[in-house]
Order: sequence, then structure tokens, then C-alpha cells
Amino acid sequence: MAQIRHALSTRRADDFAAWYQEVITAADMAEESGVRGCMVIKPWGWGIWERMQRLLDARIKTTGHDNCYFPLFIPLGNFAREAEHVDGFAKEMAVVTHHRLIADGKGGLMPDPEAKLEEPLVVRPTSETIIGDAMARWVQSWRDLPLKLNQWANVVRWEMRTRMFLRTSEFLWQEGHTAHADEAEAKEHTLRMLEVYRAFAEEDLALPVIAGEKPENERFPGAVETWSIEAMMQDGKALQAGTSHYLGTNFAEASGIRYQDREGAQTLAHTTSWGVSTRMVGGVIMTHGDDDGLRVPPAIAPWQVVILPMLREEEGDVALIDYCEGLRAALAGKSALGEPVRVLLDIKPGKAAQKRWDWVRKGAPVIVEVGGRDKDNGVVSLLRRDTLWDAASGKPAFAVPTREEAGEAIPALLEAMQATLHAEAQERREASITRGVSDFAAVEKHFAAEVKFPGWVEVQWSKPTGAALDKVVERLKTLKLTIRNVPIGSMPADGPCIFTGEPAVERVLLAKSY
Amino acid sequence: MAQIRHALSTRRADDFAAWYQEVITAADMAEESGVRGCMVIKPWGWGIWERMQRLLDARIKTTGHDNCYFPLFIPLGNFAREAEHVDGFAKEMAVVTHHRLIADGKGGLMPDPEAKLEEPLVVRPTSETIIGDAMARWVQSWRDLPLKLNQWANVVRWEMRTRMFLRTSEFLWQEGHTAHADEAEAKEHTLRMLEVYRAFAEEDLALPVIAGEKPENERFPGAVETWSIEAMMQDGKALQAGTSHYLGTNFAEASGIRYQDREGAQTLAHTTSWGVSTRMVGGVIMTHGDDDGLRVPPAIAPWQVVILPMLREEEGDVALIDYCEGLRAALAGKSALGEPVRVLLDIKPGKAAQKRWDWVRKGAPVIVEVGGRDKDNGVVSLLRRDTLWDAASGKPAFAVPTREEAGEAIPALLEAMQATLHAEAQERREASITRGVSDFAAVEKHFAAEVKFPGWVEVQWSKPTGAALDKVVERLKTLKLTIRNVPIGSMPADGPCIFTGEPAVERVLLAKSY
Repeated sequence: MAQIRHALSTRRADDFAAWYQEVITAADMAEESGVRGCMVIKPWGWGIWERMQRLLDARIKTTGHDNCYFPLFIPLGNFAREAEHVDGFAKEMAVVTHHRLIADGKGGLMPDPEAKLEEPLVVRPTSETIIGDAMARWVQSWRDLPLKLNQWANVVRWEMRTRMFLRTSEFLWQEGHTAHADEAEAKEHTLRMLEVYRAFAEEDLALPVIAGEKPENERFPGAVETWSIEAMMQDGKALQAGTSHYLGTNFAEASGIRYQDREGAQTLAHTTSWGVSTRMVGGVIMTHGDDDGLRVPPAIAPWQVVILPMLREEEGDVALIDYCEGLRAALAGKSALGEPVRVLLDIKPGKAAQKRWDWVRKGAPVIVEVGGRDKDNGVVSLLRRDTLWDAASGKPAFAVPTREEAGEAIPALLEAMQATLHAEAQERREASITRGVSDFAAVEKHFAAEVKFPGWVEVQWSKPTGAALDKVVERLKTLKLTIRNVPIGSMPADGPCIFTGEPAVERVLLAKSY
Repeated sequence: MAQIRHALSTRRADDFAAWYQEVITAADMAEESGVRGCMVIKPWGWGIWERMQRLLDARIKTTGHDNCYFPLFIPLGNFAREAEHVDGFAKEMAVVTHHRLIADGKGGLMPDPEAKLEEPLVVRPTSETIIGDAMARWVQSWRDLPLKLNQWANVVRWEMRTRMFLRTSEFLWQEGHTAHADEAEAKEHTLRMLEVYRAFAEEDLALPVIAGEKPENERFPGAVETWSIEAMMQDGKALQAGTSHYLGTNFAEASGIRYQDREGAQTLAHTTSWGVSTRMVGGVIMTHGDDDGLRVPPAIAPWQVVILPMLREEEGDVALIDYCEGLRAALAGKSALGEPVRVLLDIKPGKAAQKRWDWVRKGAPVIVEVGGRDKDNGVVSLLRRDTLWDAASGKPAFAVPTREEAGEAIPALLEAMQATLHAEAQERREASITRGVSDFAAVEKHFAAEVKFPGWVEVQWSKPTGAALDKVVERLKTLKLTIRNVPIGSMPADGPCIFTGEPAVERVLLAKSY
């Protein structure tokens, strides 16, 4: 096997964190903005998010939700109403205190002391309280229920340590908010949206995830139940990729969401909320990226096929572009994964090799290079991003179909790649979950500092609460572990709790996480 | 002619401002949020904006722009750099000064004095300065130009007097920002995007607009040229519906956007910016609304066809819904205006008459009512929202095609309605522009306080600048008038300036405005 010269300078195996940053830069997805904790999402990163938005939005609409939009600013007083919610969120938020700037007399500007707000406004960290106010106005009778809303918005949580896509002060997300007549329906809806997230992650992002309930200590502030989908990154850490909360009547009580039921009685509604954010882009990178950059699953690739004519700034270029345009048009008229194929004919100036490797780093699923000789032979040089290298030669594994064959084969190839990326990630995850660990010493050994990429461990526990749970959390913290969730459909418990020694009641996943 | 009982309580002719508010409430588009100057955009209002976004976004992408995303917060210092820009914007902005809340000791919360930001952050009123910073990083060589970016975002300008959609503290928009190698290309692009806006307004929103250059006093802060599209509302006032700015090298200089040109010299780029916002939704209401509520142009209607089975909560409902579903499926498989027909089968509980009038007020283009007798006769009762009433009887003008005829005819009907709404608005506007007014006394008379809905007046002027222009602006202000723009393609000047008496150089439109 020949030595491969990868397109990135950092290997995942050597320094996963540095590799992650390098992918983001090399794939030209995002960069620091100079504004504390905020990033600039560049066209390729935005294009992926835009695809994710479009696909998830369709799923949210299909399940009967209406999109709408609520204010960016939330009056301070709203946060004082729902006690637990405040405890969870009141700490780090951006607070608007003034509505005007004036000259500071030193050539600069300052907030105008005359324009101080009577009540400060908080930049929304999430919108339960303000949407709850609206629901209280909109819900009068049982006929108004269920009320199923969603918004795509930016939110701000002041973060001390930020990482692009994974944790930024401003981030983008959708937040769904629903109100229901009773507990059973609200709980059912909480799980329905969890399932929407699971299907979106698996089918659109090719991200295998484990759906389950979070333990009490990991609940959203004010929630009665919090459910999550958890994805495993290539370093074995967990990424919480989406959450769905059953909020009971806590927010309904705080906002006064009451309805007249069929018997005429005033009744509190039961609410849910659920969200998926730009952090999922980070999950895609850390699941599908390799030592040559990103590999974008075709369903969310802004361009699924990039055609690169090897232009030489000479007369022959016209015929070459024409030849490529034939393939572009053929592909644009075909469908893959239920949508027209997204194909770019890239004729920007630049050296051919440079452009090829730029698209490799960006992770365009299929790259088609066409030189003058290809044209003369009626063929194209086709590179699959998922299986980039020919191991024997250490060179890119070009296939050389005829132009017509390429036009016919690429749509199915894109669908196959989508499945392959999922299968690859799923296989890796399954190989990295250790089950049947039955005492805490074994957990300690499994997650010892010197073990690289230890993956997840499934253990049984007695689901302690209160102080006993605090003790478990503290103990896990010494190993930098958290309980990810109780997977839906996992085997029943059949042994002792590894923390308390009492009979276990369920199985949980332990992992390091983002 | 019989008396018509309209669906709204306010007539446009009686109180246009009150009518506008009533449409927004009656069509369930938006409402006050309780947060100063911010509104809640409800599903029907949001659905219209979402359609507008999708159609305009496609036009922006077709003209070669990449979407991306820049931070919500802009450091205060950015505003001190571009002097004119600061003068224009520094006044009313939301200023973030703290990043944490703590208990105030009285059961409430307050900004934590320990968490005061060293440099306050301004919630973006527009993004020239922060996008300029990025452009300075991204543009190195002539090969990087043109750089054509767009973002969809929320922005905040603290407004003292707000009106839903037209002027709110937080609003939503797209802002395009481009950098070019030279003045000619940047100016050309400024006009190209103005043309994109014109086509979007006319073709998608059925809004006739007049594209032209704004006078010097109405320029965007820091711009060299500002161009606009101006629409006439039914009260004869103008609404600036979109602007496109040639910024010269002003922002390039402030942010340092320099590139190495083909000769190797460091050269300042020329930039443009252009935006369209949620205020355009207000323009749609005030152009197409009538005394029965909104009329949504089919191209931007979230639902173009609403089918209302007259359910009676009895066994026969199943067959009736089934009959309606046949029409729904037939329509959903057809296209109108280049997209699949958007058709809703509305089986929500509620009285049939109530539901019909709700959809009339919302302005769904085609409403199809189906009762048991219709089903038995194989027909449907079809109501066109643009020609709602039968003048002779004073009743809704139902047509009664067979179900199959309706399925065949509705797509073409939607396209005809789109054209009809545009033609109607264009005719009204043309009838309300008075040309050939050649002295200021005539302008005063035209816009006298007692004249209702005076429309616009075209006059000739000598294009004064500086103090002479200030005098013109002041004089117009006494009549509550502004110069809207110098229409592209208007007749050359051929007389004296109505303000200065000097030979005129061009024609301008005068109007009251929103």
C-alpha cells in the first residue's frame, strides 16, 4: 500500500480538536467574527445549514405545525415568573439596557444615559415565556387545541468558552412550541417530535442517533421530561443533537395558558417545546469528516456534483465548457433523493488541481474533472468523495465512465453514498458502545485518562433522585462523564445498579460529550 | 344594485389607517407582542413572508449571490469608523451592556454589575460595517471579485412610533452586500439588483412599482447613490418597497477592503448594498386589500385554494370529505405560476359560514365550498377572492362548476388572478399620478389638507444641492411631502424648476409616504 498524502495537515487520530478546526477552515464553512463568541457562517457552511433547514422544515410542516415569528427581545420580568426556568437560564444572557448612542466627547460613541430602558430587555435565550404569553391570548377553548407552532430564529446564550457550530453565543435554531388539552396528548407529541428529529438525523444527515430520555439532572429548566437524540462523534464523544421537552403545566401556569374544556371548566394546557440548532452542523463534520476534510451527505450538500473543466485560458476552453455543460444539463434534469440533482459547473478562474482539492476539502459528494483528452475520448474523470483514495497506488481513485454513463449513473450513486455514510457511521458507533459493564471500577478503567476514544458504555442503574443522584453526577464528573440518555427500546434491567448496588430499573449510556 | 354587507367594519375610504389595522387583525396576520415596538407575526402573515422569501431568494441566487450569516451584535467601535453612516444610524439602536442577570434581592432580576461589557454591543441596525470587516479578510486579489453575498436576518432600529409591518423596532429582511473591482461594475450591479426588486414586486407580489434614484437628502447614510422602488398604496401614499445603494469606496475605506489589481497595485473595492424587508407585507396589504380583508396574490399565498366541506358532524361527513379530497388531490397534482398548486382541505371544527368569511378576510385566492347537495350534483361552489360580490344581488358571486371542471380550471384562474391584481393596482396608480404640474402653488393646492387620497405629482426640478436642497425639503415638509425618486426612463426635463425657477434637469415624484 502506497503512502497517501492527505489534504489536511492534521489527522483525526492525532488531535481531534485541532482536526475539527482545520476542517472548518479548509472547507471554508465558518470563521471567527471578531465579535466575542459569534461566528461568521460562510457560504458553504450556510448552504449546508440551509439544506438542513429546508428538509427539517418540511418534516415540521408535515406534522401539522405552523411557522410564525416572535420578538427577539424578552422583557426581564418574564424571566422572574417560571422559577426553575430562571434558575436554569438567568445566568448568562445578553441584556439590552439602552436604546440610543451619543457622542462620548472623545471621538467615540457611548450609550446615552438619557435613553436607559425602564425595564431591561433580554435577547432571547429560548422563547418559552414569550410564546407562552401569546398562547395565553390565543387559546380560549378546547377547539383551539392542539396549538402547534414553530419558529426559525437566532438565540443568544452568553458562553465563556465557544467552539464554532458547537457552542457559540449567538446560534440559529428552530424552536417548536405546542399546547395540548391533556398530559397524554402532550407527552405523545413530545415523542412524535423526537421521532421527527431521529428520522431527520438518520435519513437526511446520515447521522445514526440514539433517542432516549435524559436523566432528571439533565432536564431543560422547567421541563417535566426531556428527551434527546445522541450522536457519537469519531472521537467517541457524544453530541446531543436535538431535544424534545414535555413541560407539564409549568409554563402554562406561569403564562396563564388556560382553556374552557368540553365540560366548560377552565383548565391548564400542557405544553411541549423542542429544538435543533446549528450545532448539528458540527455533528455532521465530526461524524462524516475524514483526513481530507468534510464529506457532506448528498441530501444536505448545497452542490452534490461539481464539474471541473480543466481550463487553460485558451480557445479550446469553449468546447470543453460546452462538453461539460452537456453533463450538467443532463444531471440537472434528473432526480436523486427525491429532488432535482444539484450540480455546479465550476468555471471560476484558478488552477485545476487547486480547485479539485478545494472541493475535496469542502466534501462535495461527486467531483467530475474533465480535461481536453477526456473530451476527445468522450469520457469524464469521476471522483467519489466517500471513497477518495486508491489504496494500492495512494492516488485519488478516479473512475472514467463515458459522459453519458456518468449522467445516467450519478443520481443512483448519490443515493448509494447517502446510505454508505450512514452505514459507516452506524457501524463505527456500534463497535464503540460497550455493554454489560457491571461495576464502577470497570467504568473507571474504561474511561481512564490514557484511553483514547473510549466510546460509550451502557450500564444499569436504580435511577436515584435528589441527593443520591447528585452523588452519582459528582462521581461521573471525576471521569468527565455524563449520563446521555435512557435509550428507547433498550433491554430491561436485570442486575444491580453500578452506583448504588440496589436493583437497577433501566439502562443508561455514559459518555464524554460536547 | 343591492347593498353589500362587507366582512370588515371599517371602509378604506372612511379611515384608511384604521382599515389597515383591521385587516391585519381580521386576516390573523400579526399582533402586538407586548414588547415595545415588536410584533408577533402569526402563521398567515408569516406564511406570506415565507413565500416572499422563497421567491426573492431564488432571484438573488440566480443573479450569483451566496447566502451567509453574520453576527447579530456589532461592537460599538465599528460605528465610529464611517462618519456619515454613524450620523445616520447612531441615534436609535438597542445597546447590550451586560451579559448576566442576578437576583435583585426583591424577588426579581437585574443586570449583574459585575458582568458589564468592556465594549457595549449594538444589535445590528444593518450590517455594512461587520460585513465590510469580513470582506476585508476575504478579498485579496482581483480574482476574489466580485464578491456577492446576501443574508436573511433580523435587524433592530429603535422606533418611537411603530406600525405593524411598516415600522417596527425589530424587523426581518434580506441584506445583500457586494464588492467590485471598479465603479462601473458596482454601479451596474446596484441597478441590476434594483431590477431584481422591481421584477419581484411586479411579478410575484403583483405590486406595480416605480424604480428610480433617490434625491441626495434621502440617501442611505454613507451611500453615493440610493435607488428605490416606490409603490402607491390605495390612499395614494408612497411606500418605499426596496432600496439599492452604490456605496462608492466609503465603506471599503472604513473597513479596509483592498485588493491587488491585475497590475499588482493595492486598490480600494467599490461596494453595494440592498435590502427588502417585512414592510413589503404592509405594501401588499395596502395595495391589494379591500373592504372584506386581504387579497393575497396567488404567487405568495400560503394556500392558493381552500376547500371547505360543509360538515355537519354526522355520518355523511365521511363521503363529503372524500368528495373534496378528490378535488384536493387533482389540484395538488397540477401547477400554477410554475409551482405545484397549494391547496388546503380545511376540516377543522367550526361553522361553515364562519370559516368561509375567515378565509375571505385572510384573502385566500380561491375558496371552494362543498355541501351535501353539491356532492350529490357533482359540483362545487367556487368563490374568487378578487371578484367576490355579485353587484346585482349583493351576495357572494359563487360559480358552480362540476368538480372536474373546477380541477381543470383553477390553475389558469390563479394565473389570471395574479395578472388581474397587478393590472388593477397599475391602473389605479396611473390614474393617481398627476403630471405637468408646473408651479408650486398648484402643488400646494393638490396636496391641500382637505384633499383625500391626492396621489402623486410629477414635477420638474433643477436638482439643487446643499442649502438650496435643504430649503426645498423644508418647503415640501410643510405639505408633508417628500421627493420619492427620479423615475428611470422618465421624460427629459423641458421647463423651469418649480422650486427655484431655474431650468429643470429632471422630473421627480412628490408624495406623502409611509
